[in-house]
Amino acid sequence: MAQKPSIPKGTRDFNPIEVAKRNYIFDTIKAQFQHFGFQPIETPSFENSDTLMGKYGDEGDRLIFKILNSGDYLSKVDNKYYLDKDSNKLTPYISEKALRYDLTVPFARYVVQHQNEIDFPFKRYQMQPVWRADRPQKGRFREFYQCDADVVGSQSLWQEVEFVQLYDAVFSALKLEGVTIKINNRKILSGIAEVIGAQDKLIDFTVALDKLDKIGEEKVKEEMLSKGISKEGIEKLQPLFELQGDFSEQIVALKAILSVSEEGKRGIEELEFINTAISELKLQTANLQLDVTLARGLNYYTGAIFEVSAPEGVKMGSIGGGGRYDDLTGIFGLKDVSGVGISFGLDRIYLVLEELNLFPETISESIKVLCINFGEAEALTCLKAIKALRAHGINAELYPDAAKMKKQMNYANKRAVPYVVLVGESEMSSNTFTLKNMANGEQQQLSLEDLITTLQ
Amino acid sequence: MAQKPSIPKGTRDFNPIEVAKRNYIFDTIKAQFQHFGFQPIETPSFENSDTLMGKYGDEGDRLIFKILNSGDYLSKVDNKYYLDKDSNKLTPYISEKALRYDLTVPFARYVVQHQNEIDFPFKRYQMQPVWRADRPQKGRFREFYQCDADVVGSQSLWQEVEFVQLYDAVFSALKLEGVTIKINNRKILSGIAEVIGAQDKLIDFTVALDKLDKIGEEKVKEEMLSKGISKEGIEKLQPLFELQGDFSEQIVALKAILSVSEEGKRGIEELEFINTAISELKLQTANLQLDVTLARGLNYYTGAIFEVSAPEGVKMGSIGGGGRYDDLTGIFGLKDVSGVGISFGLDRIYLVLEELNLFPETISESIKVLCINFGEAEALTCLKAIKALRAHGINAELYPDAAKMKKQMNYANKRAVPYVVLVGESEMSSNTFTLKNMANGEQQQLSLEDLITTLQ
Repeated sequence: MAQKPSIPKGTRDFNPIEVAKRNYIFDTIKAQFQHFGFQPIETPSFENSDTLMGKYGDEGDRLIFKILNSGDYLSKVDNKYYLDKDSNKLTPYISEKALRYDLTVPFARYVVQHQNEIDFPFKRYQMQPVWRADRPQKGRFREFYQCDADVVGSQSLWQEVEFVQLYDAVFSALKLEGVTIKINNRKILSGIAEVIGAQDKLIDFTVALDKLDKIGEEKVKEEMLSKGISKEGIEKLQPLFELQGDFSEQIVALKAILSVSEEGKRGIEELEFINTAISELKLQTANLQLDVTLARGLNYYTGAIFEVSAPEGVKMGSIGGGGRYDDLTGIFGLKDVSGVGISFGLDRIYLVLEELNLFPETISESIKVLCINFGEAEALTCLKAIKALRAHGINAELYPDAAKMKKQMNYANKRAVPYVVLVGESEMSSNTFTLKNMANGEQQQLSLEDLITTLQ
Repeated sequence: MAQKPSIPKGTRDFNPIEVAKRNYIFDTIKAQFQHFGFQPIETPSFENSDTLMGKYGDEGDRLIFKILNSGDYLSKVDNKYYLDKDSNKLTPYISEKALRYDLTVPFARYVVQHQNEIDFPFKRYQMQPVWRADRPQKGRFREFYQCDADVVGSQSLWQEVEFVQLYDAVFSALKLEGVTIKINNRKILSGIAEVIGAQDKLIDFTVALDKLDKIGEEKVKEEMLSKGISKEGIEKLQPLFELQGDFSEQIVALKAILSVSEEGKRGIEELEFINTAISELKLQTANLQLDVTLARGLNYYTGAIFEVSAPEGVKMGSIGGGGRYDDLTGIFGLKDVSGVGISFGLDRIYLVLEELNLFPETISESIKVLCINFGEAEALTCLKAIKALRAHGINAELYPDAAKMKKQMNYANKRAVPYVVLVGESEMSSNTFTLKNMANGEQQQLSLEDLITTLQ
C-alpha cells in the first residue's frame, strides 16, 4: 500500500550538504569547547515526566512532548480519572516519560544524580536535540539542536571572563567577525529597581526596559507607568536612557545612578572585573558591550547575563546567550551549586553563515575523485587504486555500473566531484591512470604513485 | 520541592569518558564512510505514525514509542472510541507521531520524498539514535544509536564488494583485527529449499538452519521434520552439514547441491564474483567467510546477506550486519529501487574494544594542561598564556578559584591532566612558567614559546 510520504510539521530532513554545513558548525564549536577544557556529556532523549514538568512554567509544560506509555496503558487508569475525559487530568496516568525540552534541566538532573562521581568545578558541554510542541514558523522548529557549555561548582568570575573569550574564539573560528557580546548583570537591574523604588516590580521593570530598542524611550516609560512604577522613580531612570560612550564610560554613569544600592554596586564590580580582564586579554574579532537593558530569562539568572548578536547589517535575533545562575540544582535537592553557562543558537548561526557566504567552499565536496566504470576488469583495476587512495585519506569511489560515459560524467558533475579517473584498455596495458580535472577539463596520464601525490 | 533524580529504565547517561569513547568509534566509522564516498543525511527523531506503523510486524508496532498529541487531545476523540477504554483502539486518535524505530524505514521515506533531488546511485550514511519500548536487559536499551550505510539505485555487485572492504576498513581502523565477515545469499537459501522440495517452507527451513551453531545437526533436522519438511528433503541436505574447506571449496560443494536450481546457481555466481574480487583486492585484517546458515531478516533481503562477528575468543553476538534488498522504497510507492546496506552495532563494538583494551590511551585526556590559580594577577598571566596555548590547538584551562594548592592538584589528578603550570611571584617577575609533568613529577622553567613547543 503506497503512502505519500511526509514528515511531521516543524521537523526537518537534512540532505548531505546541509548535514555537512551543520557538522562544520558543530565541529568548530566542539573544538573550541575542548580547547577551553569543557567535557562532553550526553543524557537520554526522554526523561521521567517528573524531571521535566513544572520546570518551565505552565506554557513550558504545555510545550513538552509526552510519550504514551507502552502496552495496554489504559488498563491501569481508574475510571474516576478516565470518564471525565479531561486531557490534562488523564495525561499523567497514560504518560510517564517526556522528550527533553532543553539541555539545562537534564544537566541539573545529571549533576545531582552523579554528584559523587563528578570532580567539581565541572565544565561540561552538551550538543543534543531538544523538542518543543511549539507552533512551527519560520526559523522555529519542533526539533532543534542546543549547544551548551556550563561550569558548575565555582563562583569565580574568571569563568565569566572565559565565556566571553569562548564566544570570541568560536565566532572567530567560524570567520563570523564583528559579533557583539552584550553583557549585563542581574544585580545591576535589581539595584536600579531598588533605586527607583520598584523592587517588587523587578520583572515588570525589566520587561519594559528590555523593549527600549524596539519601542523607544517614551513607550518604555509609559509601560512602566502603567505597571505601577512611580513617576518619580521613572524620572530617576533618565541617566540610564542617556547612557553613552564605551564600556568604562557607561560604568562611570552607572556608578552614579547606583551609588545608594549595595547590590547594584556589587553588580558594577563584577562587570568591571570582567571588562578589565578582557581588555588585558583582548578579543580576536568580537566586541564586548555593556547593555543595561539586557534581561533575558531574568528569573533564572543571578549574576552576569550574556547575549550575542550577529555582525552589524545582518538581521537576526540573538545567536547566543547565557549567564550565571546560583541555584540550578536546587530543584533536585542539591543546594548551593553555582553555575554559569552559555549556549549557541545553531539554526541562526547557520542562517548567518549562509547569508554572509562564510561556509568553506570544500564543504559540498563529498568525494575527491570518481572512477569511471568501463567494465569488470577496468573496475577491478580502479578498485585497487581506490583502495590505495583511501588509505591515504582521499575520499574516492567507483561508479558502480558500467553505464554510458555520459551518465557517469553527469553523476560526477551533479556530485561536484573535482576529479574523475579514467581507466580503459590503454591505461590497463600501460599501468597508468588518466586523471581529468573537472573544473578545467585538463587530463594527465599518471602512475598510481603520482595519482596519489596529485590528489593529496 | 526536592526529587530524587533518576532516568527512565533502558536509557543511559554518558559521562565525559564514555562520550569520548563513543565518539572515537563514531568518528572512525564516519571517516571510513567518507573515504568510501558515502554522504550523511539526518531525518527527524519522530515520524508520522503512518510512516512507521505496519513496517516492522505486530511485535515491532508494539515496540514503537508513540507521542501523545499536544493540547486538549481528548476533545477530538469521539465517545464511541473513547468509552470502550481500549488502548489499541484509542491510540491512533490521541497519537499521530512516533519515535524512529530504526534508520531504514525513515531512509526509505526520505528517498521517496526527495527522489527528484537525489542523484542515483545514492550512497548515504546515517548515525542517529533509535528508540524501542523493549524490555531492557543487559546490552539492550530503549535508546541506542544505529550506524547505517546504504546504496540505492544500482544492482551492481561491486557494491557488495565495497561493503566487505568497508567492514574491513572500519574494523582495521579501530585496531579490532581478525573479525569475520560472514556472507550468504538469499538465492542460495531459496535454491536449497527448492532442491529439497520446501519452497513453501523457506522461512521455517532457514530459521531451523540458522540454529545449527547453537543446537547442532540432529536438533536442526528434528525441527525441520516437525515443520513438515520431508525426510527425503532433509537427507538431501546432508552435504550442507558436511561443508568444509575455504570459501572456494565450499562453493564447489554448493554447486553440486544446487545444480538443478537456477536461482541457487545465480546465488553462487554472485558469491563467486564477490569472493574473486576480494581475493584480488585483499583485506587488511578481516576474514571473509561463506556461511550458508546465515539468514538474518530473510524476508527483507533478496541477495547478499552479511554478518560480522568479533575476533575469536570474544564472546559477543554479531557486531554488524546487512544485505541486499530489492524493494526498500516500494512501501512508499517507489518501485524497483534496489538497495544494499550494512550497519554497525555501536554498543557491542564498544564492549569489544573495552574488553580487548583497544581504546587509545589519550581518550581520557580532556585537557593537556591545568594552570594553578594563585590569585588575581597570576591568574591573568596564566590566562594570557592559555590563550596562546589554545590558539596552538592545546586544550588548557585555569583552575577558577585561588583555592588551596592541594585541592587544585587533586583536581588535576582526578581529571588525569598530564601537565600543570605554576605561575607565582618569581615566575611573574622572570616572565616564565613552571611546567610540572604529573607522571614523573619533573619540573621545568620555561618561556611562553618553549611552553608551547613542549606541550605541542
